[in-house]
Amino acid sequence: MKDLSAKLGLLFPDMVTWRRHLHRHPELSYEERHTSVFVAERLNEWGATVRTNVGGYGVEGTIQGSLPGPVVALRADMDALPIQDEKNCEYASTVPGVMHACGHDGHTAALLAVAKLLADHRESLAGTVKLLFQPAEELSPGGAAPMIADGVLNGVDAVYGVHLWTPFPSGSVYSAPGPIMAAADEFTIRITGRGGHGGLPHETVDSIVVGAHLVVNMQSIVSRSIDPTQPCVVSVGKFIAGNGFNVIAETCYINGTVRSFDVTVRDRIVERLQQICVQTGEMFGADIQLDYKPGYPPVINDEAETERFFRVAGSLFGADKTRRSPLIMAGEDFAYYLNRVPGCFMFVGAGNKEAGITAPHHHPKFDIDESSMLQAAVLLASMALDYLDGYRKSSS
Amino acid sequence: MKDLSAKLGLLFPDMVTWRRHLHRHPELSYEERHTSVFVAERLNEWGATVRTNVGGYGVEGTIQGSLPGPVVALRADMDALPIQDEKNCEYASTVPGVMHACGHDGHTAALLAVAKLLADHRESLAGTVKLLFQPAEELSPGGAAPMIADGVLNGVDAVYGVHLWTPFPSGSVYSAPGPIMAAADEFTIRITGRGGHGGLPHETVDSIVVGAHLVVNMQSIVSRSIDPTQPCVVSVGKFIAGNGFNVIAETCYINGTVRSFDVTVRDRIVERLQQICVQTGEMFGADIQLDYKPGYPPVINDEAETERFFRVAGSLFGADKTRRSPLIMAGEDFAYYLNRVPGCFMFVGAGNKEAGITAPHHHPKFDIDESSMLQAAVLLASMALDYLDGYRKSSS
Amino acid sequence: MKDLSAKLGLLFPDMVTWRRHLHRHPELSYEERHTSVFVAERLNEWGATVRTNVGGYGVEGTIQGSLPGPVVALRADMDALPIQDEKNCEYASTVPGVMHACGHDGHTAALLAVAKLLADHRESLAGTVKLLFQPAEELSPGGAAPMIADGVLNGVDAVYGVHLWTPFPSGSVYSAPGPIMAAADEFTIRITGRGGHGGLPHETVDSIVVGAHLVVNMQSIVSRSIDPTQPCVVSVGKFIAGNGFNVIAETCYINGTVRSFDVTVRDRIVERLQQICVQTGEMFGADIQLDYKPGYPPVINDEAETERFFRVAGSLFGADKTRRSPLIMAGEDFAYYLNRVPGCFMFVGAGNKEAGITAPHHHPKFDIDESSMLQAAVLLASMALDYLDGYRKSSS
Amino acid sequence: MKDLSAKLGLLFPDMVTWRRHLHRHPELSYEERHTSVFVAERLNEWGATVRTNVGGYGVEGTIQGSLPGPVVALRADMDALPIQDEKNCEYASTVPGVMHACGHDGHTAALLAVAKLLADHRESLAGTVKLLFQPAEELSPGGAAPMIADGVLNGVDAVYGVHLWTPFPSGSVYSAPGPIMAAADEFTIRITGRGGHGGLPHETVDSIVVGAHLVVNMQSIVSRSIDPTQPCVVSVGKFIAGNGFNVIAETCYINGTVRSFDVTVRDRIVERLQQICVQTGEMFGADIQLDYKPGYPPVINDEAETERFFRVAGSLFGADKTRRSPLIMAGEDFAYYLNRVPGCFMFVGAGNKEAGITAPHHHPKFDIDESSMLQAAVLLASMALDYLDGYRKSSS
Repeated sequence: MKDLSAKLGLLFPDMVTWRRHLHRHPELSYEERHTSVFVAERLNEWGATVRTNVGGYGVEGTIQGSLPGPVVALRADMDALPIQDEKNCEYASTVPGVMHACGHDGHTAALLAVAKLLADHRESLAGTVKLLFQPAEELSPGGAAPMIADGVLNGVDAVYGVHLWTPFPSGSVYSAPGPIMAAADEFTIRITGRGGHGGLPHETVDSIVVGAHLVVNMQSIVSRSIDPTQPCVVSVGKFIAGNGFNVIAETCYINGTVRSFDVTVRDRIVERLQQICVQTGEMFGADIQLDYKPGYPPVINDEAETERFFRVAGSLFGADKTRRSPLIMAGEDFAYYLNRVPGCFMFVGAGNKEAGITAPHHHPKFDIDESSMLQAAVLLASMALDYLDGYRKSSS
Repeated sequence: MKDLSAKLGLLFPDMVTWRRHLHRHPELSYEERHTSVFVAERLNEWGATVRTNVGGYGVEGTIQGSLPGPVVALRADMDALPIQDEKNCEYASTVPGVMHACGHDGHTAALLAVAKLLADHRESLAGTVKLLFQPAEELSPGGAAPMIADGVLNGVDAVYGVHLWTPFPSGSVYSAPGPIMAAADEFTIRITGRGGHGGLPHETVDSIVVGAHLVVNMQSIVSRSIDPTQPCVVSVGKFIAGNGFNVIAETCYINGTVRSFDVTVRDRIVERLQQICVQTGEMFGADIQLDYKPGYPPVINDEAETERFFRVAGSLFGADKTRRSPLIMAGEDFAYYLNRVPGCFMFVGAGNKEAGITAPHHHPKFDIDESSMLQAAVLLASMALDYLDGYRKSSS
Repeated sequence: MKDLSAKLGLLFPDMVTWRRHLHRHPELSYEERHTSVFVAERLNEWGATVRTNVGGYGVEGTIQGSLPGPVVALRADMDALPIQDEKNCEYASTVPGVMHACGHDGHTAALLAVAKLLADHRESLAGTVKLLFQPAEELSPGGAAPMIADGVLNGVDAVYGVHLWTPFPSGSVYSAPGPIMAAADEFTIRITGRGGHGGLPHETVDSIVVGAHLVVNMQSIVSRSIDPTQPCVVSVGKFIAGNGFNVIAETCYINGTVRSFDVTVRDRIVERLQQICVQTGEMFGADIQLDYKPGYPPVINDEAETERFFRVAGSLFGADKTRRSPLIMAGEDFAYYLNRVPGCFMFVGAGNKEAGITAPHHHPKFDIDESSMLQAAVLLASMALDYLDGYRKSSS
Repeated sequence: MKDLSAKLGLLFPDMVTWRRHLHRHPELSYEERHTSVFVAERLNEWGATVRTNVGGYGVEGTIQGSLPGPVVALRADMDALPIQDEKNCEYASTVPGVMHACGHDGHTAALLAVAKLLADHRESLAGTVKLLFQPAEELSPGGAAPMIADGVLNGVDAVYGVHLWTPFPSGSVYSAPGPIMAAADEFTIRITGRGGHGGLPHETVDSIVVGAHLVVNMQSIVSRSIDPTQPCVVSVGKFIAGNGFNVIAETCYINGTVRSFDVTVRDRIVERLQQICVQTGEMFGADIQLDYKPGYPPVINDEAETERFFRVAGSLFGADKTRRSPLIMAGEDFAYYLNRVPGCFMFVGAGNKEAGITAPHHHPKFDIDESSMLQAAVLLASMALDYLDGYRKSSS
């Protein structure tokens, strides 16, 4: 398609309008009722084939080209976060305690623009593009898996997605082959000792001392048991025990997260965590229960599709603006799509120091450089069309 | 006084009545308004000189004998605990969440009986007996210090007190020379690290890891830094940190107790605790604030007065029922009296396995073998009269 | 016996001669050949019944009185230590690397004087005194057990022993009822991990990290698992691991001691030590072998015999020089005698600051105030005679 | 140069001869006297310009082409290791306790073949190739730095080196842009506590307990203080303390290594190590001295030169045999060359499971698949000529 960037540029004012509407009316994970309707109305209006309530409040739009060809899926997530918007601007959230603090509003707006463009040029489209508007990315078990279970990847040959990312400057795009975002799991440890008088420790099993040793012992997982070239993290976020300063605590509650990029690494961490819980418990005479809840798997980009990214993005934004992404310790349920279909997940720089857009994701003052939406739309559309073109050339 | 035991025996039904009344109507530390009135009314009725509102809700009764002699003080504490009574009996507490779970009602009833006896035999009394009904023993800073500040020990030559004690069998009495109950202090530690993303620990100072090392490091105080022949305890009762499983906790709150029987031991513990806090903080880059709140000092019995106990109690209850007490890790503000005046603190067995009276102190089903009140009254009265007798003999 | 002190005083020059002879010619544990001959020759010369090679190089002398009565045993140990004498005096050790650095030479000399005195007054002795010159006190399993096995306590009614003790001032004597010296055990821990490249810890089991956690975990035994009123110690004295700075150590060797005064305390320590070894090993995937070698049991004085000490010594040295001994963390195989026969182990002050006699036991400059030998002889003889006298009075 | 591989193939029997000669006569780091002479003789024979005793026993050979062009350096290391050869073959080491257990003999032989080839074709060479035979790679501070100080990189435009590597299969070659081998540093920690009686820990500062806490505390460096995506290791290889099981150790010696790929990572590790030493010492009252000895910096390949490797090696060995190298936790003083001049360090697979060549580097049975020497020679020569060619093309 000629002038793709220019044509999407014409849609940029709409993207801003749509994004700000969504930003004012954010909806939590699994509660994206109105966002879903908003998206479906637009898609219907433009003549796409629309399926709603896909894996929850998911919306699947399909633009079937007039010419035969493969099927490519593009995904945007739609949910907001339980954070109070502290921005002082006209499009700030109107819902107390709920906010688009991760840029999913921008993802949705950008993908809507792509949908409009493709719908307008269906006659020249050699293949099919599916537009996946996904709910519940922020909260495990997430919306990707149920949408896949509901068939959104059936017949799909490749899948692409983006994340607007304020740590990267607007105008630049990032990706990398192989693992790029972490598997993010949750674990809960419940220690049951034997409470008693603070002055008579020998009649008790001190669950706080057990818990403290447990946390110290955990440090040796990363420092000793995992290949140093394999990035991973074991963090405890909560440690709650005890009722009185002079009473030995009977129980201790520990809650944390494990991040990894490789399943054997994760398995080894879980194995060591389990050993540490069981043995530390037996060492002190406490009962320790470990509840390990795997979160999203790592996001692993396809090698060839990532080469496509470097080629396509390089020509769109220049080689110096097309960068190899570092590993990102956060998780993403886009991982589930990539487990099924080759594809690439990409970061679109959305920060802008000059404009003061520097708040990290999940921050109460989070915002994006809105021009990043245009870049996201251009990148997604170009990746899809490049795939269709490549297929046509190779099969002709 | 002849037949002291028999005469007090006649007052036993009154003791039971008084104790059960107080048991039904417990009052928390610093709130002993009605208990105080109840005590003062009895003392007035029997013709004692009464001073009320002494160091709070304290009551000082004075029985001045007709003959000259020294001054002996006997002390009972009056306050109850913030515990819900779970006993199923007609004298159970009528105040929700408040209960005489430590036997102070029995102390008060026993001392009232002693007051009645002495008031009835003032003419044969060679000296003066002060009856100190003290508030707020259970909650530091306690009622003993303000009562002393209010003059209750002025002119006093010796002081005695008892604790009804269910771990010891009814019928037996215990004491020991020198330290017998612990100094019981409270410490609070506030760790301030730097919060952040659970997957990016290097951008944070993990206050839970700091706190865990702190608790582990503390174990070396008792194991390495204190003379093994000096009993002491360092216990953490509360450890609270964190808000989410995947967020590094910025702050961590630790609250605990130190028990010791000797001021140089306590000082060394505080010194090591301070070192451990400061250095563990600096090691990890966290700020750690230690707030150390000394509680009651150790209860240290006078050697000679404890010999008096063994002699007097031995003749009253038999040598086999008069035992050397082990060190008790709990604290008592009777310590303040003994810091000023020679005296002896004694335990009166109040447990009775056959009768099912086995609940430990501060337990929701705590109760006493009520016959222990009679033994307590006999012991207190006998100690006081022995002192007066001894003085008379030595000065005659 | 009248003038016992004066009569022993006449023997003081002999004691000094004997002690200095032994000091010049020290013999290690299990090698006391010449010392044994020296003792036996003296006893034979004075007409005692002598048995040699008793439980090794032990010598049993028997002085049977002309009058009937009970049997009392007095014990002195004879062995020296593998320490190089650094004293600069004419009686310094002539044996390189061997030295009487614990005062056993003085014990032997004092007991020889007692033997001489009693042999000279056999006709007035109502009963029998056995003189036990014991080898190998310094080195477990010790000489006491084999001497007992060889019959030295057969028919014995009471047993007494002393230790000259430089931390206490010459002129004073100390003892206490119940436990007075510790059980002193040895443990050895061998950790087998898996060695490897220092840069590839995940391919190894790092025995140094395992050992470090083990030592840290051990601190919780004393701090949490033992009654704070029960003195005990767990100390690691050796920790040896590794060959190169950049190679993970396959094995780690740990060697330490446990001190306690009560068998249930010792048992609990061993139980926890075993748990800590097994579980720390399993936690890290290492094999850990604990070899626990019980040493001498605690020295536990008989209550009545300790009362005898306070009475006898009080009248000999004055109440202010007759003190209650603190608990001594060192061990003594005198414990075995007390496990079989009532008795009392006593400390005789042997330090003298004015004379510069301050070196601790086992120090290369250790020496004694020799006048303490006279006090030791007087105390031992008086205890024995008091026992015989008491028996005579009670049976007459 | 046409038929480069074939021409080097003709030299393969020589390479085997030279390598086996060197293998029989290994020389330790800083002692490569005969190896150096052996190399210089060959180079002289073939007409190279030779400089000896360069930065120690280093040899610099220069082949100046007949045509003008840039200067490329190729490096081989020559030293052996203090390991006893346990191979059973005719070319096993004849020097007791010294062995080429890392393949440097193969490096030298391969580079000699390259020298012979280039010397034979000087007339067609457009530029200059320097052949750097380096001593003392195995032992810090290494031979690279003094050779550079002695001018071997003066005027050099690019530098290449290889390592024969048995963990990779013969026939394949590996490299990667950016960091590829670790900085490998050594640290020594000396803890001075206060020794004493094992039963009296409170009178001592227990250096073993301090050291154990130190090792445990160190685990938090990697687990908490370093970006999880930055590979690094902190390992303790030696821990030596104590003389007797019942004596508290006065001093403790700890010796270990730090591996990292980035100077800010190394700096942060050193900072934390220093904090941990100082604060752990102050926490327990011990003096701790940290001696940190930086080793070789990380080997960091130039991006463009690594692209050259992938292109050149891909055409030589096939894309499937030309692999991206993982990070190697070992160190190499080739790092110093790359700090001064763009270049690339490459691994040449030297293992062969079928032939039983599987022993890891530094193992007493280490050997190489000798065919890897040919591949190393082909790779080095091709990289050099490609650089010269590229220069010619770009400047024509």
